[in-house]
Amino acid sequence: MTDEIVVIEGDGIGREVVPAAVEVLSAFEFDFEFVTAEAGDATRDATGDALPDATYERVADADATLFGAAGETAADVILPLRKAVDSFVNVRPATAYPGVDALRPETDVVFLRENTEGVYSGHEDRLSDDLSTLTRVVTSSASRELAEYACEFVEDGRGPAGDPDEGFTVAHKANVMRETDGRFREEVLAVADERGVDADEELMDAFATKLPLDPTQYGVVVCPNLAGDVLSDLAAGLVGGLGLLPSANVGHDNALFEPVHGTAPDIAGEGVANPTAAILSAAMLLEYLGHAGAADRVREAVETVLAEGPRTGDLGGEATTEEVTAAVVDRL
Amino acid sequence: MTDEIVVIEGDGIGREVVPAAVEVLSAFEFDFEFVTAEAGDATRDATGDALPDATYERVADADATLFGAAGETAADVILPLRKAVDSFVNVRPATAYPGVDALRPETDVVFLRENTEGVYSGHEDRLSDDLSTLTRVVTSSASRELAEYACEFVEDGRGPAGDPDEGFTVAHKANVMRETDGRFREEVLAVADERGVDADEELMDAFATKLPLDPTQYGVVVCPNLAGDVLSDLAAGLVGGLGLLPSANVGHDNALFEPVHGTAPDIAGEGVANPTAAILSAAMLLEYLGHAGAADRVREAVETVLAEGPRTGDLGGEATTEEVTAAVVDRL
Ligand SMILES: CC(C)[C@H](C(=O)O)[C@@H](O)C(=O)O
Ligand SMILES: CC(C)[C@H](C(=O)O)[C@@H](O)C(=O)O
Repeated sequence: MTDEIVVIEGDGIGREVVPAAVEVLSAFEFDFEFVTAEAGDATRDATGDALPDATYERVADADATLFGAAGETAADVILPLRKAVDSFVNVRPATAYPGVDALRPETDVVFLRENTEGVYSGHEDRLSDDLSTLTRVVTSSASRELAEYACEFVEDGRGPAGDPDEGFTVAHKANVMRETDGRFREEVLAVADERGVDADEELMDAFATKLPLDPTQYGVVVCPNLAGDVLSDLAAGLVGGLGLLPSANVGHDNALFEPVHGTAPDIAGEGVANPTAAILSAAMLLEYLGHAGAADRVREAVETVLAEGPRTGDLGGEATTEEVTAAVVDRL
Repeated sequence: MTDEIVVIEGDGIGREVVPAAVEVLSAFEFDFEFVTAEAGDATRDATGDALPDATYERVADADATLFGAAGETAADVILPLRKAVDSFVNVRPATAYPGVDALRPETDVVFLRENTEGVYSGHEDRLSDDLSTLTRVVTSSASRELAEYACEFVEDGRGPAGDPDEGFTVAHKANVMRETDGRFREEVLAVADERGVDADEELMDAFATKLPLDPTQYGVVVCPNLAGDVLSDLAAGLVGGLGLLPSANVGHDNALFEPVHGTAPDIAGEGVANPTAAILSAAMLLEYLGHAGAADRVREAVETVLAEGPRTGDLGGEATTEEVTAAVVDRL
């Protein structure tokens, strides 16, 4: 059966790294149909709408989507697209690779970020000239669904240690947000307990202190939405930046894959962007579509190229996006 | 005129480091009257109340308070005490010291954290068996008051660079929390503009990536309440942990000073806790009460002792709290 994959390059280096990732996907003999769609700043400038309905519908109806990056319209594009694929978890691995300058080369953590609620609920009110409010939402159902996913993830040996006994850590701020994060924490720990998965907890501020001091303390980390956003970006700083990090927005029968980096306007259009994050996002897409072996081959090829070169400028090399991509395809 | 200083040791190593800080304060000939008060886990166990009304009133009526740490009742104690001193800003310097093992020894940042609202509003509701909400509050008045403080702080050369031209950075998440952090960001930047203080901005997730990559990019950082909590704790991880970091909760005519660290139950009661954070909090208290010269002398003495020893176990030494304190007093 053909899998329909929507491809959205977006803005800036999205236009360079997404084709690179598609080239890697096309190197396999899978029955993929690639369908392009438009979103981002350029789309807004051309059509008045950063995320046209046609793009939203196409993503909602696809089997999976590969997205690049959007500029100032990033939130207008990515937040609705996460809804389009009905995503309840954002999977964000942060791994340091040999050959890449990292502040903490021993970092190997996967964040499982709640992807629908928290302060991302979208409910804000301007109550007076002085006062605005936001309604932060936490439900037991979303918390439990995330926790079920985390348990399966751990049970399947998909954590960095590959060892189900390692369990996961839930990071939260339930000492202050007692009712909302209290609910989140309680439900996540209850699901882990029901399923016999080992789980411990950490306040999110303590986590922010302790991760740089010793990242090997953590493996799989389960967080509310904003905590996952900030703590996974912190981990990116420890592995050398956003340039290498992929992510998956996983839903019930659809998913969207995106590099964590942005549009990098300073180098966009020059053909020198690092395609690694987009290619690793494509590997997550392969795994999601049931091609775990192919996903592993992509990851191994990427690791070899990171270690041996060629390298793009962000990693101290002089190679083009195309040269790095060709080297990865070569090693598949 | 006598200044009344309330002294709350609290729990764990609070009982060791607060007396050390009082010893340093007492080494000067200022007209301080120290009044002790109780709060924390032990107080709750003894009286049923982690923060007795008498303590709250005493703090509210004092000129300044020095607080140690509380255990599991931390939030029950510190959040009301911040209200007792009517604190609108939490000042959190994160400085790496020579002689202290730090992941980023070049870190020198001061966080000015909004101290009354955001997700700390305290408004939470259990709306159903499935759903809880929290009302995140942002007002123009609190945002502007914080910004005015930040401008004065910068103008007075109190930033790490000591150079008013360095201005400040406002960290926020206004791309998602458009109305609430949008208001915060807009008001803070407007006040800076009105006062001719240079201000730039950073999304809080990008800040979490960029601070570990290069902390010298930042000096004074102005944040909403939770962002300030998490990002300042991240900075703590870059300077070697919470053991050295002081903080000030500044109000209109009252203030409370506390080390950022907790009760350290693993070493409590052994007389080997590092008193540095508490002593540096006492230095902030001296500065607040108008004794800037004395504050500088304390800071210099602390720096000398950190560089030359004696050192407590957390810094690889074998000295007791008392020996380190005596060494600091000796060098005043
Ligand atoms: C662009 C923004 C809305 C988004 C988020 O906050 O989720 C981004 O920071 C991310 O983490 O993918
Ligand atoms: C104990 C807790 C309520 C407190 C906070 O979140 O403000 C602490 O983390 C701090 O930063 O002083």
